[in-house]
Amino acid sequence: MRDDHLITAKQLSREDVDAILDRAAEIDADPAAFADRHADAILGLLFFEPSTRTKMSFETAIKRLGGDAVDMGTVESSSVKKGESLADTARVIEGYADALVLRHPSQGAAKMVGEFVDVPLLNAGDGAGHHPTQTLLDLYTIRENAGLDDLTIGIMGDLKYGRTVHSLAHALTNFDADQHFISPESLKLPRSVRYDLHETGANVREHTELEEILPALDVLYVTRIQRERFPDENEYQAIAGEYGIDLETLEPAKDDLTVMHPLPRVDEIAPEVDDTDYATYFEQAHNGVPVRMALLDQMLEDRQ
Amino acid sequence: MRDDHLITAKQLSREDVDAILDRAAEIDADPAAFADRHADAILGLLFFEPSTRTKMSFETAIKRLGGDAVDMGTVESSSVKKGESLADTARVIEGYADALVLRHPSQGAAKMVGEFVDVPLLNAGDGAGHHPTQTLLDLYTIRENAGLDDLTIGIMGDLKYGRTVHSLAHALTNFDADQHFISPESLKLPRSVRYDLHETGANVREHTELEEILPALDVLYVTRIQRERFPDENEYQAIAGEYGIDLETLEPAKDDLTVMHPLPRVDEIAPEVDDTDYATYFEQAHNGVPVRMALLDQMLEDRQ
Amino acid sequence: MRDDHLITAKQLSREDVDAILDRAAEIDADPAAFADRHADAILGLLFFEPSTRTKMSFETAIKRLGGDAVDMGTVESSSVKKGESLADTARVIEGYADALVLRHPSQGAAKMVGEFVDVPLLNAGDGAGHHPTQTLLDLYTIRENAGLDDLTIGIMGDLKYGRTVHSLAHALTNFDADQHFISPESLKLPRSVRYDLHETGANVREHTELEEILPALDVLYVTRIQRERFPDENEYQAIAGEYGIDLETLEPAKDDLTVMHPLPRVDEIAPEVDDTDYATYFEQAHNGVPVRMALLDQMLEDRQ
Repeated sequence: MRDDHLITAKQLSREDVDAILDRAAEIDADPAAFADRHADAILGLLFFEPSTRTKMSFETAIKRLGGDAVDMGTVESSSVKKGESLADTARVIEGYADALVLRHPSQGAAKMVGEFVDVPLLNAGDGAGHHPTQTLLDLYTIRENAGLDDLTIGIMGDLKYGRTVHSLAHALTNFDADQHFISPESLKLPRSVRYDLHETGANVREHTELEEILPALDVLYVTRIQRERFPDENEYQAIAGEYGIDLETLEPAKDDLTVMHPLPRVDEIAPEVDDTDYATYFEQAHNGVPVRMALLDQMLEDRQ
Repeated sequence: MRDDHLITAKQLSREDVDAILDRAAEIDADPAAFADRHADAILGLLFFEPSTRTKMSFETAIKRLGGDAVDMGTVESSSVKKGESLADTARVIEGYADALVLRHPSQGAAKMVGEFVDVPLLNAGDGAGHHPTQTLLDLYTIRENAGLDDLTIGIMGDLKYGRTVHSLAHALTNFDADQHFISPESLKLPRSVRYDLHETGANVREHTELEEILPALDVLYVTRIQRERFPDENEYQAIAGEYGIDLETLEPAKDDLTVMHPLPRVDEIAPEVDDTDYATYFEQAHNGVPVRMALLDQMLEDRQ
Repeated sequence: MRDDHLITAKQLSREDVDAILDRAAEIDADPAAFADRHADAILGLLFFEPSTRTKMSFETAIKRLGGDAVDMGTVESSSVKKGESLADTARVIEGYADALVLRHPSQGAAKMVGEFVDVPLLNAGDGAGHHPTQTLLDLYTIRENAGLDDLTIGIMGDLKYGRTVHSLAHALTNFDADQHFISPESLKLPRSVRYDLHETGANVREHTELEEILPALDVLYVTRIQRERFPDENEYQAIAGEYGIDLETLEPAKDDLTVMHPLPRVDEIAPEVDDTDYATYFEQAHNGVPVRMALLDQMLEDRQ
């Protein structure tokens, strides 16, 4: 397997992460300097699941580097319907592109495809598995707003199923961060993830109430609690209400608290928060572009 | 709200319209002069409803200016399915693009989104609301074929529900045009639109028979009568037949009559008309490109 | 009708084919020399059926020539749903593009559309009809791997319904090729195709067993046997098994046998064949790009 595939954030050292985030900051400071970097590059998009943010920001990223994308389209409009295997689809499309981006509902899909293709592959989410570019844009947003060292971060909501959260928590162990996990008992971090974090020596604590820790936080990362996890609608409503935030909830927070969310949100953050300086979730989504530009730029540069 | 959003044709003065149509004519005369105007521009496409003409001509327009588009895709393949609000979707996508185009089934959607986004927004149709770029390409087609001054125009078909018609009729009040509206009683102009037109002092008359006025017309603008408006199929057939045209119908017309239609047509214009000099509806559709190029060129220039 | 429409491979002489394949070879040897050839060209994509390979490779081809594509999208997201005729849709879209590519489920669709449009049209498959660019990329793959002269080729699988096969067989009659057709009785070449081939004086033989002829072959072209052709699942399984290949089947073959398949495959070629030198089907799919670039380059050059 090529060693420039990006399958999981775990494969990135602190130095790798710093290099990517530094380049993203360079791009943010002077995007015009990168506008013709990869004029002949074509990025192949294989999205086997709906996606707005990730797909559009990859497409924007390659176009802002002067290149272009070719898109497999939805599964319904592709050969997948005729029974083609994922490996075959990827091996065909790699012939059209200089790099591939894959989103797939099955955990492990990116690693498997990585064994077959000869162009660099970027994992854009494989089910309950990994989504490394989300982690990188989260780190970039934290670095730009609160700094990655001497950081106190709270991560709240669905900590059991959220792959975003597990990946971010692991990546933060490379930095000097105190991590606080806030959730109902039923949505706590899985034992394996907690064990993994403790192994690295990370400073990790769990809470059931946001107010216990809110005043100490530099960053509050809120995640979506998925209605479909709850057999009972009332239970969902109660928990969603308790782990959502509004202006009142945020009163005890530091003035310079950074509130993040991977989006889409449903009711976890009240719209009234949007107009405050806390709100960093749209900036976070927009950071997908410079971060993915940085990654693509590095990847396409390396293979020349 | 930014004052360079284009939400409704009503916000455009006669001078604004002239400037856009003049620029479209320049583009038509020498498209190569515009081919690299906006090489780094990206247009974000948010189409919450099916569209061929409008979406493809916007996409063609930005590409013919040297730029590119990123497309949200269908609602089914996007985050909208996860319950994201329209305002949130737009605020995410504005981070990828230099301008946005929105088509949405709900009247007022463009105005609402315009309150939230910080890049210029073009309304590409919001339900029964506005569709200003359609009006501009209609005006351009009339200007190029019959002239906008000393004009006698007939507008025929579904005048009750057709937003295209209401918007065009209003825009024509800026010019020296006699407007004749031809429809069955059941599909007459709504009272509010008729009132609006009379207020401007426009010369407006209504007819139930095309033959009453056809010989005087410079332009005949035909619109689609939608089958789904009629509970009874026979009634639809009768009316569709009476308000459709063919070579025989057109016999009393001036030789240089311009026949327009916003397309898609179903049975309103017989295919035998396509090969005559009357037929201007495909040219009209094609005019979507230079007119939208002119608009985008102006909009992207202004923000530099 | 324009004489530069490409509706069927039958309209191409041996000289035409050689010119296209020569240009494709030039492109393969030095793609950078073609990277800015058609910077202002826009290709209109009209795909009325799902397609991965054909659509993506056309899109890649125009982009690798420096141009761009505009895509009608799926039928569900287009005006077709509003009852627009195919001819009208094509006549609208030709106004946006410098050339059109059409895939449609109805035999004869490309020829019909060709009568209406004034820009060059490429048929990308019309039902049981023609798919000339598939034939060209097949010929290119054969030429690059085994040569088109003094060729012994076996074509196996569904020879009754496979338009790919009929078109390739006909095209090969321009060259010095012995053609062997291998299939169960129920899926033999249609009488009309066999008659057509004999008319040209081509050297054609039919077999029911691959082993009768395998050792003599330079190329083995395998096609998909479609499950839906068989009322009985067991019969399908038996036939699919007998007309599929694996390493054991291929033992009597020449060392330099070229195995081709138009893809997608289901079970006709065992994955263990993929890692051998026989396997040429992914290369064949990738050849869609230089061949379509060569065609587009020629077509766009001619109209300047």
